[in-house]
Amino acid sequence: MSDSQFSSKLLENAINEFAKLPGIGRKSALRLVLFLLRQSNEDVNNFGNAFIKLRNEIKYCKCCHNISDTEVCGICANPKRDAKTICVVENIKDVLSVENTQQFHGLYHVLGGVISPMDGIGPSDLNISSLVERVCTGAVNEVILALSPTMEGDTTNFYIYKKLIASGASVNVTTIARGIAIGDELEYADEITLGRSILNRTPYQENNY
Amino acid sequence: MSDSQFSSKLLENAINEFAKLPGIGRKSALRLVLFLLRQSNEDVNNFGNAFIKLRNEIKYCKCCHNISDTEVCGICANPKRDAKTICVVENIKDVLSVENTQQFHGLYHVLGGVISPMDGIGPSDLNISSLVERVCTGAVNEVILALSPTMEGDTTNFYIYKKLIASGASVNVTTIARGIAIGDELEYADEITLGRSILNRTPYQENNY
Repeated sequence: MSDSQFSSKLLENAINEFAKLPGIGRKSALRLVLFLLRQSNEDVNNFGNAFIKLRNEIKYCKCCHNISDTEVCGICANPKRDAKTICVVENIKDVLSVENTQQFHGLYHVLGGVISPMDGIGPSDLNISSLVERVCTGAVNEVILALSPTMEGDTTNFYIYKKLIASGASVNVTTIARGIAIGDELEYADEITLGRSILNRTPYQENNY
Repeated sequence: MSDSQFSSKLLENAINEFAKLPGIGRKSALRLVLFLLRQSNEDVNNFGNAFIKLRNEIKYCKCCHNISDTEVCGICANPKRDAKTICVVENIKDVLSVENTQQFHGLYHVLGGVISPMDGIGPSDLNISSLVERVCTGAVNEVILALSPTMEGDTTNFYIYKKLIASGASVNVTTIARGIAIGDELEYADEITLGRSILNRTPYQENNY
């Protein structure tokens, strides 16, 4: 679309801002802007300010580096959570994914990425030293490594494992189980996953889900 | 998703605001918010303020009711446009669609909807009287009715036609051509469209596109 067609610079500017978002093209952007124009001034003020406020006031938890409104995030500050278990994840989205399962009641540690020499991300760019410090306080029994099963994830797992051993802390290091996803068919599973799921077989339980 | 999972109210609020937009679910909203968090403060301020500014400062052109930054929109104020021809459209999006064709060089008149008793929209809810006033100045030769070919659109066309005749203004009233869309196959065209396209056949031109 050429610029000249818009009768309003304000409209054009708003469309451009929406179109900067991933997965939103100029046609969708126009549709969203026209939707906002039909809302009340107050609603649109709330809409715009929600992002400005988020960006300007957001903090990262000084314990787990999760996104937070306060110095220490709600999860770390919750006395009901098991502070002896730390789940190491790549990013904030993964915290939400694990929380969604409602199967984990410990604390988190957000690395902020994985070691990836191709992208120029080394161990010093990640929140690894603060993880070692947390573990070295002695208050942690188990560190669960919950990174993606990629080359980079495995490298990062190995690096963290070595660092924790080297620190002399007495802590169990575990990784989340790899295997056939629930609902998947064996026929379509890749060999490595199927092989690992046989090696890491678990005792049969009646309510395994 | 339950509320409890978010470690930050600011994050949750921003996600909720995005999820209010049509076609954006909570998963997409989270993705967009995390994208914004990776942008600079300035970029996010510009993002949020673009919509607030648009909503608070936008005006509607007092001639054609198109969206505008000023009292009179860029199209109406442009001396190069043919002020003798007015194209009547349903909404702002339709102005953009017609402008995109680059085939129309006259002015517009945005009705703000079509007559639809089912939705409680009567002629008095639309910008019809101001259209009649514009035509009655005598400066208009032709009014092109470019509404959607629906029952409501046809009803509105008829109402406007009657009003213009009743006003005593000497003006040609035309409608945009209905027919087989370019690229469509006759086999799949509906009978009414095909029938009308035969009735309204046009002289053969070498460059008909």
